Amino acid sequence: MPSQPFHGVLVPVLTPFTPRGEPDSRRFVAFCRWLLDQGAGGLAIFGTTSEANSMSASERMALLDALIEAGIPAEKLMPGVGACSMTEAAGLATHAVGHGCGGVLTLPPFYYKGVPDDGIFAFVSSVVDRVGSPALRIYLYHIPPVAQVGYSLDLVGRLIKAHPQTVIGLKDSSGDWSNTAALLDRYPGFAVFPGSEVFLLDALRKGGAGCITASGNVNVPGIRKLYENWRGPQADALQADVTALRKALQAYPMVPALKRIVAHFHNDPDWAAVRPPMLPLDAAQSSALLADLAELGFTLGERPRSRAA
Amino acid sequence: MPSQPFHGVLVPVLTPFTPRGEPDSRRFVAFCRWLLDQGAGGLAIFGTTSEANSMSASERMALLDALIEAGIPAEKLMPGVGACSMTEAAGLATHAVGHGCGGVLTLPPFYYKGVPDDGIFAFVSSVVDRVGSPALRIYLYHIPPVAQVGYSLDLVGRLIKAHPQTVIGLKDSSGDWSNTAALLDRYPGFAVFPGSEVFLLDALRKGGAGCITASGNVNVPGIRKLYENWRGPQADALQADVTALRKALQAYPMVPALKRIVAHFHNDPDWAAVRPPMLPLDAAQSSALLADLAELGFTLGERPRSRAA
Repeated sequence: MPSQPFHGVLVPVLTPFTPRGEPDSRRFVAFCRWLLDQGAGGLAIFGTTSEANSMSASERMALLDALIEAGIPAEKLMPGVGACSMTEAAGLATHAVGHGCGGVLTLPPFYYKGVPDDGIFAFVSSVVDRVGSPALRIYLYHIPPVAQVGYSLDLVGRLIKAHPQTVIGLKDSSGDWSNTAALLDRYPGFAVFPGSEVFLLDALRKGGAGCITASGNVNVPGIRKLYENWRGPQADALQADVTALRKALQAYPMVPALKRIVAHFHNDPDWAAVRPPMLPLDAAQSSALLADLAELGFTLGERPRSRAA
Repeated sequence: MPSQPFHGVLVPVLTPFTPRGEPDSRRFVAFCRWLLDQGAGGLAIFGTTSEANSMSASERMALLDALIEAGIPAEKLMPGVGACSMTEAAGLATHAVGHGCGGVLTLPPFYYKGVPDDGIFAFVSSVVDRVGSPALRIYLYHIPPVAQVGYSLDLVGRLIKAHPQTVIGLKDSSGDWSNTAALLDRYPGFAVFPGSEVFLLDALRKGGAGCITASGNVNVPGIRKLYENWRGPQADALQADVTALRKALQAYPMVPALKRIVAHFHNDPDWAAVRPPMLPLDAAQSSALLADLAELGFTLGERPRSRAA
């Protein structure tokens, strides 16, 4: 097994948009830096929470270029290269490898449904071949509730066997703990990240690498505290804390809710903008969300003043 | 209501790939010309049957460029501009409008699931705004069995009302005749094309514009005969004929089966290639398919020799 470049609390970073709907690289760079300052173990930019699939390939590449130019360490970045076509996925992965990114998060092709495992295997293998670099590190992105197409347990094993130096981990956003547990049991040394901190303690107890979680956008410190103390006597209480916040967030459409929180606590209303087909929270939802968070005593760490706009 | 540029039997054209997996523009041009020669009313290139979502935006644009350069009439073309991002969809639509295409076929954004109608409305409206051309003609592409996201009856009405000169038709691949019938009842003058010739006669009797059907790739003459004689005494018999062929095809994965048929009857084995995540038919499936077709007395019109490779 190759060495593992990522562990801990990874964040699928929200993507800010300007009032005209364009990706906002200035806010994006500042937010990524803030997440790393808070202790994020890596930034899984361009995931589902990032509205990556609401951006073109060139928009995603321009944002990655901006992060690198701003000095965000490439080895901390795990950009999503999800695309329905192997050519676009390979193009995005080649761009990420060129920047020295620690890894890439790879959706299965998600337009056609009911496709055979052999077809998904051929897709990933084509991406590996087209990138053609020993520096490529693929994390499989398993999120059947959204993509509707996923990586079966057997397919994961076939991909590891075919590409042992390349396919080195998986984000499991199935929401199905039994699937995460089975991955951890069957593929020791393979980096498995549950897609929610709700499963973090259970995963760590079975050898999991950490988690990659949307709520990391607003709760790196809390989740990191659990990650660092999972063997200690407070572990279950820390898990209960992060789970309570997660459950509160899940009562709302996740991406608009997270953006609303950043907009509110960083006093930056433009942060609430989302791209179609998502919609921002309406006023009533926003008030209810903030009230729910107040009840939990939640507050968001301020952005460092020296780095504010 | 604006004038309607398309009617009759439209074909979502198969996309040939080279043995190395690249789009094969030479075969594509020849095949498009052959379909028009056979009487296709239009070519809905880059649809689901075209494996369009297994191609990058630049690959699709290069194929469209090749058709135009080869002299295929742009007004006969209805390229699919389906993409998860409004920026990519708008870029593809702008390219198509620049070539003078008769229309574009537009999927809803299909990555995020369970999105509100307001979000899909905002997506389509953003595409219209970004293209910013009175020459844009959008046909909505409703295919919930694959995209999992669709255009509800009410949303269609809202889009027609907001963009009366632009949103002028819809391909209904729901497979649900009651939805097609409701569209025809509610929006007279709006061009509704069922996504299967199985519903062609029923649709024409209610004012439908024709059909856009995968099996058109191998059966333009049969379906066109029904289209031209739908008021005649033979209509039901003609419908039964085309339905029988369609049912035979549907017993197999549709795209690989259609490509296998073209490969076989045009004596061009490379035509059978598909892109991941699809797989070609195996030998047993191929034999069974050809046997089923032989039983129906099916044969494919030869490609014009003068235009063969």
